[in-house]
Amino acid sequence: MANIEEKSPRLWAFLIATYWISVVTYFLSWKAYKHVSALRANALMSPEVKPEQFAVLVRDLPDVTQGQTRKEQVDSYFKSLYAETFYRSMVVTNNKEVDKIWGELEGYKKKLAHAEAIYAESQKKGSSAGTRPTNKTGFLGLCGKKVDSIEYCTEKINELTQKLEAEQKVTLREKQQRSALVFFTSRVTAASAAQSLHAQMVDRWTVTEAPEPRQLVWSNLRIKFFERIIRQYIVYIVVFLTIVFYMIPIGFISALTTLANLKKYLPFLKPIVKQDAIKTVLEAYLPQLALIIFLALLPKLLLFLSKTEGIPSGSHVVRAASGKYFYFTVLNVFIGVTVGGTLFSTFKTIEKHPNRVFELLAKSLPGNATFFLTFVALKFFVGYGLELSRIVPLIIYHLKRKYLCKTEAELKDAWFPGDLGYATRFPGDMLILTIVLCYAVIAPVIIPFGVLYFALGWLILRNQALKVYVPAYESYGKMWPHMHTRVISALLLYQATMLGYFGVVKFYYTPILIPLPILSLIFAYVCRQKFYKAFCHTALEVACQELKETPQMEQIFKSYIPPSLCSEKQEDEQFEDALSQVSRTGSFV
Amino acid sequence: MANIEEKSPRLWAFLIATYWISVVTYFLSWKAYKHVSALRANALMSPEVKPEQFAVLVRDLPDVTQGQTRKEQVDSYFKSLYAETFYRSMVVTNNKEVDKIWGELEGYKKKLAHAEAIYAESQKKGSSAGTRPTNKTGFLGLCGKKVDSIEYCTEKINELTQKLEAEQKVTLREKQQRSALVFFTSRVTAASAAQSLHAQMVDRWTVTEAPEPRQLVWSNLRIKFFERIIRQYIVYIVVFLTIVFYMIPIGFISALTTLANLKKYLPFLKPIVKQDAIKTVLEAYLPQLALIIFLALLPKLLLFLSKTEGIPSGSHVVRAASGKYFYFTVLNVFIGVTVGGTLFSTFKTIEKHPNRVFELLAKSLPGNATFFLTFVALKFFVGYGLELSRIVPLIIYHLKRKYLCKTEAELKDAWFPGDLGYATRFPGDMLILTIVLCYAVIAPVIIPFGVLYFALGWLILRNQALKVYVPAYESYGKMWPHMHTRVISALLLYQATMLGYFGVVKFYYTPILIPLPILSLIFAYVCRQKFYKAFCHTALEVACQELKETPQMEQIFKSYIPPSLCSEKQEDEQFEDALSQVSRTGSFV
Repeated sequence: MANIEEKSPRLWAFLIATYWISVVTYFLSWKAYKHVSALRANALMSPEVKPEQFAVLVRDLPDVTQGQTRKEQVDSYFKSLYAETFYRSMVVTNNKEVDKIWGELEGYKKKLAHAEAIYAESQKKGSSAGTRPTNKTGFLGLCGKKVDSIEYCTEKINELTQKLEAEQKVTLREKQQRSALVFFTSRVTAASAAQSLHAQMVDRWTVTEAPEPRQLVWSNLRIKFFERIIRQYIVYIVVFLTIVFYMIPIGFISALTTLANLKKYLPFLKPIVKQDAIKTVLEAYLPQLALIIFLALLPKLLLFLSKTEGIPSGSHVVRAASGKYFYFTVLNVFIGVTVGGTLFSTFKTIEKHPNRVFELLAKSLPGNATFFLTFVALKFFVGYGLELSRIVPLIIYHLKRKYLCKTEAELKDAWFPGDLGYATRFPGDMLILTIVLCYAVIAPVIIPFGVLYFALGWLILRNQALKVYVPAYESYGKMWPHMHTRVISALLLYQATMLGYFGVVKFYYTPILIPLPILSLIFAYVCRQKFYKAFCHTALEVACQELKETPQMEQIFKSYIPPSLCSEKQEDEQFEDALSQVSRTGSFV
Repeated sequence: MANIEEKSPRLWAFLIATYWISVVTYFLSWKAYKHVSALRANALMSPEVKPEQFAVLVRDLPDVTQGQTRKEQVDSYFKSLYAETFYRSMVVTNNKEVDKIWGELEGYKKKLAHAEAIYAESQKKGSSAGTRPTNKTGFLGLCGKKVDSIEYCTEKINELTQKLEAEQKVTLREKQQRSALVFFTSRVTAASAAQSLHAQMVDRWTVTEAPEPRQLVWSNLRIKFFERIIRQYIVYIVVFLTIVFYMIPIGFISALTTLANLKKYLPFLKPIVKQDAIKTVLEAYLPQLALIIFLALLPKLLLFLSKTEGIPSGSHVVRAASGKYFYFTVLNVFIGVTVGGTLFSTFKTIEKHPNRVFELLAKSLPGNATFFLTFVALKFFVGYGLELSRIVPLIIYHLKRKYLCKTEAELKDAWFPGDLGYATRFPGDMLILTIVLCYAVIAPVIIPFGVLYFALGWLILRNQALKVYVPAYESYGKMWPHMHTRVISALLLYQATMLGYFGVVKFYYTPILIPLPILSLIFAYVCRQKFYKAFCHTALEVACQELKETPQMEQIFKSYIPPSLCSEKQEDEQFEDALSQVSRTGSFV
């Protein structure tokens, strides 16, 4: 008893700090939500014409009646509802085949340009005739007949162009799917249509906002209503299993990758490890490094799984993947490492009292403080260092320029920085937030590191996002509500951990903390009620802002034609013909 | 062991029956859902003009800017969004005062007619002069000054008419609230507007479907977004407490109202109770009768609580109340009586193992079979008998005709059958369903009673609903999804009880039943996904059906003016003047 009495002032300070941190988090995240919401509204009401604001995506079309084409069905349906603002519709087709041919064609075009560049170079360098580049036609250019590259590519291109044209016609005529894009001449109508129930049965004529052309996932558009739901749940189960059963390998890795173990199991490393400098570095960073590499393998799988759910837009896929990655990260890295360090000794405790997991977590937290401190430090020294210097892309670029790239287009490709990679970056930041929150009271030395991490992140990533990376899509801030939920999750975890911590030290006033998680849930609920709907849909008062110029509906329509269906001779009669599947009304002046 | 082996075939039959009943329930309720959904669509697409299909209810209006009236604010907002189909708006006012005056005025008008009828009668009967009726002005006409009724009423009417006119003007001018009704010239626009998010912040400009004029709850329209949410949760908590703590009195009543106890505590009843015929009846029906009377007191409270939630439409209030009443009924009557019969003996068991409630229920079920059998029988013999003969309303009507009613209007009032009273009727039926389901396997003799109950109900209530009762509102089948949820709840309770039952008899194959509750949840989820949204909103393809005639917008607008704000001289200038608060656009031809 005396021991606790002694500790009491410290515990009271801890308790007040917990409240203080929670309230600050509420306040800041509320402000941020409000700010992002206003930014979203501003971006949406911009006077510039954006194709996605004039279109809606219609899925789950019912069967066509006899003697009616898919296009006629869609047109008559929407004309009867929106007589004045309906412009045109585009029936979604199955582009798998045509995409494949187009991909091959583009590949050969690149190869041709490459071969021609090599030939020109050799002509410049040596004899006037030069050496014509050759390649083998077999697997990866390693086996098969040797042919003249330029001739071979030209031949292939001609062949594929014809094939593409034929396939384009077949696709537009015969491979129509049960979904369509519908274009309106008014932003308000499009925004309102995307929010309205069109058919009495919910699983028919599902109308949603159209994603941007560049982020439309064409292959997912044909998936039916209930199939989407089933796919979603299957993916959730798969992800759940992945999260739960990855815990075992992580536990092993954190047990294995101590220096002593390495020496024991990989004796050939001994001479290297014996050197003092390397030893220090390895001892400090080895487990963390193993963890970081381990985590780098996952995002591809999660992106694939999220795409399988049947989500129609690329940004939504990224959001879904990053959400999964967050839960993976927190459960496996944070909880896994914390409890995993003492996993074998306390496994039986968990089994007997599964609801004592927070107590266990609280008990294990102090022991792992150093690990996570170095983890955060490593993340921002190495992570931001690499980010800012972009040393890896630089090396790769120079290597490519030296040995691979021959044409201007190839150089541009090699230099292309890609997008910010939200799917992995943001869960990483959220993990840091979780760590910082959970250690803020127990080991407050982590706070400056956390502040530094996010302050540097603000400076560096702002710069990178604005000036380096090329965004692959624009989701108008739809990522934020998603992040906000995770911030509150992290806060809840922190509050539960603190409850566990006070429980462990048997502090008499622990129940004072109980309102905190409830408060967090109410806060999350209020935020969701107040802001979330405006992130799901476009508010009509936002959509009704004046535009700078009259929208060029033809342009908007064309922007949605996938490149593989775009004919080369854009201005030709043939193009109009290929698009004859696509309806046109006379109503637009 | 031998005992269970013996029982095994019977238990297998029980198990198969449980599956069978569940599947039949799924099938029937699916069919019913589909059917009601189609009926709703048919009713909504009817070519007749219905005012509520042309209006939306707008709540949570933001503050008006300086120099702008409320009406101008609403008009400019909706004109900018719906330039072509916006017709007019009506700002909601606080009608409490004017309603009160109007109520008094109507009361005096009735009294005057009554007094005149009495006077005319007395003239006819006796002397040519007749006796002028008199009344006292004090409390309930029992004390105060004695006055001539006709003169007094006429005087009062004149006085109140002037007061009403003044108050109407004040109300329209000064008592405007933060909500409005907006009228469109097109059903599609109204349906689409009711489903769309209008403002970036969800708690401003909340647009929802307008309820019918007759079921609009005016006093709730001014309640703000978050206030509505808070009220809702407070009401939920109050209802939860009511449900939980009513259990105690019910337990006492079912313990008290045995004949032996009655004799003991109310000795003056002894001579009556001793007669054989009365004794038999009382013994069989006394506890049930007590229960039924007890439950009759509740609906008023629940209706009041539901109205307090801030719901804007009368039918929704009834739905909310009936949902609460259902849970009350099932928890208190069904579970309370079943477990309550053995409450005192098994109270400690519950306390020790709170999750064994279903086992306990299963154990207590067989003992109460007779009680519920007589309960169902009583319900349909007495309930339907009273319903069909309408003997109580008939007696009341004849009594009123003889002693109270003097004018035609009063007679009509006395005869008026009212509406079906969904708030109490449907939870009662759902209770019977729950009882029949739960006893279907254990005491299958209840099945014919259940079938008879619902078959008779179909015949009798169909007749009553179509030919006797006057519906107070039309909700286009919105009650059904609500009932469907409760049917599935009853089914879940049944399945859980069966699990408990098999657990009690220690049947080896009990786990075969575990998929059933999961199946029920999936079924409920699928139904909700497929049908529910069409019950929340009007599908646009339904709203776009042709109308029989061009809608008379003026008529539609007027139908929403509450009677207390309707001026007597409808065609007068003064009416137009009183409505000058209300905007009008020139756009409607």
